Amino acid sequence: MKLIRHGAAGDEKPGLVDAKGGLRDLSGSLRDIAGPALSRQGLDRLAMIDPETLPLLPAGTRLGPCVGGTRNIVAIGLNYADHAAETGAAIPSEPIVFNKAPSCLGGANDPVILPKGSAKTDWEVELAVVIGARASYVHANEALDYVAGACIMNDLSEREYQYERGGTWTKGKGCPTFGPLGPWLVTLDEIPDLKKLSLSLDLNGRRQQTGSTATMVFDVAQLVAYVSHFMMLEPGDIITTGTPPGVGLGMKPPRFLKPDDEMVLRIDGLGEQRQTVIAFDDWTAKVAAGEPTN
Amino acid sequence: MKLIRHGAAGDEKPGLVDAKGGLRDLSGSLRDIAGPALSRQGLDRLAMIDPETLPLLPAGTRLGPCVGGTRNIVAIGLNYADHAAETGAAIPSEPIVFNKAPSCLGGANDPVILPKGSAKTDWEVELAVVIGARASYVHANEALDYVAGACIMNDLSEREYQYERGGTWTKGKGCPTFGPLGPWLVTLDEIPDLKKLSLSLDLNGRRQQTGSTATMVFDVAQLVAYVSHFMMLEPGDIITTGTPPGVGLGMKPPRFLKPDDEMVLRIDGLGEQRQTVIAFDDWTAKVAAGEPTN
Repeated sequence: MKLIRHGAAGDEKPGLVDAKGGLRDLSGSLRDIAGPALSRQGLDRLAMIDPETLPLLPAGTRLGPCVGGTRNIVAIGLNYADHAAETGAAIPSEPIVFNKAPSCLGGANDPVILPKGSAKTDWEVELAVVIGARASYVHANEALDYVAGACIMNDLSEREYQYERGGTWTKGKGCPTFGPLGPWLVTLDEIPDLKKLSLSLDLNGRRQQTGSTATMVFDVAQLVAYVSHFMMLEPGDIITTGTPPGVGLGMKPPRFLKPDDEMVLRIDGLGEQRQTVIAFDDWTAKVAAGEPTN
Repeated sequence: MKLIRHGAAGDEKPGLVDAKGGLRDLSGSLRDIAGPALSRQGLDRLAMIDPETLPLLPAGTRLGPCVGGTRNIVAIGLNYADHAAETGAAIPSEPIVFNKAPSCLGGANDPVILPKGSAKTDWEVELAVVIGARASYVHANEALDYVAGACIMNDLSEREYQYERGGTWTKGKGCPTFGPLGPWLVTLDEIPDLKKLSLSLDLNGRRQQTGSTATMVFDVAQLVAYVSHFMMLEPGDIITTGTPPGVGLGMKPPRFLKPDDEMVLRIDGLGEQRQTVIAFDDWTAKVAAGEPTN
């Protein structure tokens, strides 16, 4: 299944994508793509619904983040050997773990707001997985049983906040709109091999990032197991698994996001994200004028 | 007001402490101490209820974490000048920010489980504040308007995971039971001065930590304002503001937690926490045998 959440930001309703690509409303059957709905049993129950019986959503429906109830976004640093090389860092011997604030989550095509005064906002296409069941001290060989599905995340990062403001990376990772998630939560049964997915990110129509999950240092199962030894993962939690080469920080000279830049992110079978960059002041002016902001 | 959450873990109901120290049930008036209930308006509405009209809770009622719906626990590192000195670190020029996984939250008197194989679990008494309203780019002089109240947190920390496993501090901060919060959420109107609170932690009856919020490097208002520039804070989010001197890591030789150790934490006007330490295997054996675990 390809699950979605649709409607106004903060008030999203559940839905799914039918065989022809139409968006269907699940709100008659379910409160949200969250909690128990993400368990194996919950997903099996959803799979029994015939999509053709569900109301079609109008064209132009906004998609929100493809999962609700997220309390923990765990992000993995330097998890592609070729990206680690690009940043001048050694390949980590254990996964590098940091957090993104859940309040940064947004829809796949929502605008990305440059933080007030920011000059170093950067892109990172990533494969994210959504936890479907409580996971604590799980082993890698059973870890995928705890995963509901996968989706695209743009792990937007303010490099000055991340590296030049002291302490851990957290400051540069959780600004509002820094976590576009979706468009779809694709259940694992629809993904032939998590270790053979191509990823890409285009900036203004030019390819910037190209990669394959085949070059991950730690694969999804290893990451879920590893993280579960340090903290309990809960349904709706997200692990975003690191980015392949091609970020703005790695360019010579570095190239950061500017207003009106457009990013397009793709992962095999997981759809496409498309975000336009907007300056903080322009965004607040739009909000003040009551204009649509996504 | 002194607000509480009572009942079984994961299924807590709202309540409050009356003038005589009795615990009263608020579940007839409110679903949870969470979300809109934490706003100024929500708290004003609660304050109009006469506690004497509420059902008394039986003695021995378990207290859960004193706030619900938490999606972000932001912790501040090295925020007491004397604690920074103890760890050999410089006084930070900007707040050091890291995260604790929300799944680590527990009640004030719940047992603390040593992680599987852990040898370096340490204590940290801290003043925590709970966010009452969405806060983004707020200024320090208005920051307390966004705070619902304050409480005690024991910022339990596994020092090997924190410092010796690569990457950021996250790995050592969010293990299950590493975030006892409460006993009460005390609203700001009942706290004469956030900058003059004494804190202490006793281990097995012996004083280990003594401090005063007067020696904080950055005060609560500065911290709320600072964090809100990097991420949007939401109702129920927690900022825990650092620990004074006296942690186990700072002792010569270092002294870490062992099974049957008892910690007692106190902050002026915010009550007391009391936790017994239990080994992971003993805890799982208790759960398997159906014995009470808190």
